This record gives sequence, structure tokens and C-alpha cells, in this order.
Amino acid sequence: MSDTQVWSREEFEAKLRERGRGYHIHHPFHVLMYEGKLNQQQIQCWVANRYYYQIAIPIKDAAILSNCPDIDVRRGWIQRIFDHDGSGPINEGGKGGIEAWLQLGEAVGLKREDVQSLKLVSPAAKFAVDAYINFARQRPWQESVCSSLTELFAPHIHQQRIDAWPEKYPWIKSDGLQYFRNRLTQARRDVKQGLDITLDYFGKSREMQERACEILQFKLDVLWALADAIMLQCCDVKIENGVQYVRQDQV
Amino acid sequence: MSDTQVWSREEFEAKLRERGRGYHIHHPFHVLMYEGKLNQQQIQCWVANRYYYQIAIPIKDAAILSNCPDIDVRRGWIQRIFDHDGSGPINEGGKGGIEAWLQLGEAVGLKREDVQSLKLVSPAAKFAVDAYINFARQRPWQESVCSSLTELFAPHIHQQRIDAWPEKYPWIKSDGLQYFRNRLTQARRDVKQGLDITLDYFGKSREMQERACEILQFKLDVLWALADAIMLQCCDVKIENGVQYVRQDQV
Repeated sequence: MSDTQVWSREEFEAKLRERGRGYHIHHPFHVLMYEGKLNQQQIQCWVANRYYYQIAIPIKDAAILSNCPDIDVRRGWIQRIFDHDGSGPINEGGKGGIEAWLQLGEAVGLKREDVQSLKLVSPAAKFAVDAYINFARQRPWQESVCSSLTELFAPHIHQQRIDAWPEKYPWIKSDGLQYFRNRLTQARRDVKQGLDITLDYFGKSREMQERACEILQFKLDVLWALADAIMLQCCDVKIENGVQYVRQDQV
Repeated sequence: MSDTQVWSREEFEAKLRERGRGYHIHHPFHVLMYEGKLNQQQIQCWVANRYYYQIAIPIKDAAILSNCPDIDVRRGWIQRIFDHDGSGPINEGGKGGIEAWLQLGEAVGLKREDVQSLKLVSPAAKFAVDAYINFARQRPWQESVCSSLTELFAPHIHQQRIDAWPEKYPWIKSDGLQYFRNRLTQARRDVKQGLDITLDYFGKSREMQERACEILQFKLDVLWALADAIMLQCCDVKIENGVQYVRQDQV
């Protein structure tokens, strides 16, 4: 058996799922969050930074549509833009994920305008998220679809928040968690199309299967780097024998 | 006197230079480096990551050329590509900054092929550097020229290394420092063209002058985020009451 033999469809999917070991659910900042150890300012910092990721999603999905000549794929993929941008009047149930995220912002005590202004977003968080947008703009659409497969791991982290937050962060109003509840259903549905496309397209050779794993790793790295940026912005960080990390231009 | 009044040329230049307070010379990782507190592995980590920045420079400068219709600007700016890529046979003095950086890599004990493979580069370092390349590709050439003005602050950090390293890091061979010696002269010459273009183009209104300061800040943020990424990759980092920072997928 050569180690360059093509994986079966099941093996290939298992190899992709194995990459979940690098999902940001394991990032120390998210572990602190799950354990209820973040204060309100730190939760706010996460919500404000992560907003930049939320508004990037429909831009990224539109880039995929714009690179994709397959009408059937486009007819499925376009649902993701509605999921985040919403459709119809917001007060009649037409709100999408971005609006739900703004409501999470309000539930944790942030002003909507402050979140929307992006003034709270760390530069390194922007660089990580922009890397994802630019990937979707510049790479073949099948690669961008593959990069979305961190959705395989998302329901778990959303469920964690729904379960743990009411006890750990009782000061966050329950309707603030609506984004996570919505995504539980949406992410499970979305991942089916993305996974099928990836298993089909990259399943043709072992080299392509490994390329798919690398692309998924790139997206895991985006989410990890986003968590790094947030951690450095709002946590007490000490490096090398207790040296305090402080941004010089912020003192 | 309104606070929207246009700054004089001298005031404008002073405002740009003031931004030097956020230059990565003040980043805790670079402070540790200057103080001689990094070990060989950490110096290697910096050199290997920073190589990704070095190879991005001529790509970025070519993007500026490709966006610039002004032949006089191009005739000056093209020198930067030669500075980094070199010209003529390398063994006859034709080497550029990238080759000098590879020699720094060898001087700190890295294999040339390992540096060139980019396998030692942190994802977050790539995201920061790619943000700089994509800025140069997507923005008007005058904005990209402005973003290069961190060169205003570079001679100081290069001089620090030339002065401090022989004492603090005696195990690094002296010819490894040639990159810094070359850049002392080159950066001082380069900054003249970039500064003149910026003061002329953005000097037309206070709004544009402030835009120039923001662009310079963007580039300072790129360098700062690069140092963050390197620090998280190779330093002992503790967050919030001593929680150890470790990348889960690397354990």
C-alpha cells in the first residue's frame, strides 16, 4: 500500500474532520470563555472583533458566487448570503446573522454604532479575516468552498455557548444568544453542500485530497489568528519571565 | 484656528514621524531582542518568519509600479526591486536584500532550504504580510507609497542591531549583519522619494493628511502584528493568571 494512494470517500472525510484538533474551540481564549473566566470587557472585545468576521462572510460568499460558473452550486450557495444579510423587513423576522450579532453586541452592553464603526477591531483581527476574503476572491471557487468547512466543527462550539453562558454569564440577556441558536441549524445544513463539493472535486487524487486538508488548515489558522488577536487586545498577557505585553501606541 | 486646517509641510511631516511611537522597535519581542534576552531558537524563529516579509517587498513594489502611470516615479521606485532581488551574478556583488537575509539565516544556524520553504512561517505572520501586499495591489499607488514610510523609523532599529548584536549575540557571525548595514544606506535614500510623494499628494487638505497618517498606521500595524505572531510562536506566553498559551494542533 503506497502512502500516495487515494483515500476512499469515507477516509477523506475522516481526514478532514481530524483537522478539528486545530479548531479555535481549543484556543486558550475560547477555553477561558467556556469556563466562564472572561469579564464583561473581554466578552465585549470578542463580540466587537468577531463582528468583523461576521460582516466578511457574505462578502466572501459573494466572491465565491462571482467565481463559480455552475448555476446549481450558485443556487444553493446564495442561501448563505441571505442567512447573514437577512431578507425582508428586519422587524418581521427578516433579520440575518449580522443583525443577530449586533443584538448579541447590545446584550453584552455594546452600543450598536460602536460595533458597526469597527473602531474596536484589532488590526491583526482584520488581517486574519481579510486573508479569508482575499482567498475567496483569488482562488478557484472549489478551494473557497473547501475553506468553509470549519463549519464541520461549528455546531459544537455554538452548543457550548448556548449551554454554558446562561450559568457562567447570567448578565447576558438570553435573546443575545439567538445568533448561536440560528447557526446550529444553518451550519448543519450548509456543511452538506460544502462537504459534497469538496469530497467530489478534491477526491480525484491523493494530492488533491491533501491539498483540501491544507486549505481547511488555512481556514482553521484564520480563526486561530483571530482568537490570538483578541487575546492580545484584551487579556493580561505575560511573555518570557513575566514581561508584560502592552501595545506601545496604546499607553 | 480650526482643527480642520491644513498642516504646513513641516507639521505634516512631524505628524507622520510622531506615529513612530507605534513602530515595532517598541514591541516587547523586539525589546527582548535588543536586550539580548532571546535564545538561538527564538532568533531563528524571527529570521525565518521575517523572511516572508523580505520576499514580499519586491512583490509589493512591483504592485506599486503596476498601478503607477507616472514614469518618473517608476524610474525611481524600480530601484527598490533591485535592492531586494539583486542584479547580476550573486558572487560578483550582485546580491540583494533577500540573499542577504538568507545569509543572516545561515549565520543564525538555519538551513537555507528550510527558510526558503516557508515551513517555519506562522500563519498569522503570513496574514499580516499578505495584508501589505494586497493593500499595494488594491489601493492607489500614492497610498501604497505612503504605507512604505515606516522606512522613516527603520535606520534606528537596524543601527540598534548592528551595535548590540556583536555583544549580546556573539554566536552570530558578523557577515550575517550585512543586511542591516546595507539597509542603513538604502532606507535613508528610499525614504526621500516616498516622503516627497506623500507630502505632495496628501498635503492638499487636512482630510488627506489625516488619511496619510492612517495609512502609515496601517503599515505600523502590519509590522506590529508580525511581531505578535512571532512572539506567540516562540516565546513562553502566559495569559490571565498564568494560563499557558499553546497551539492545540502543535502539541
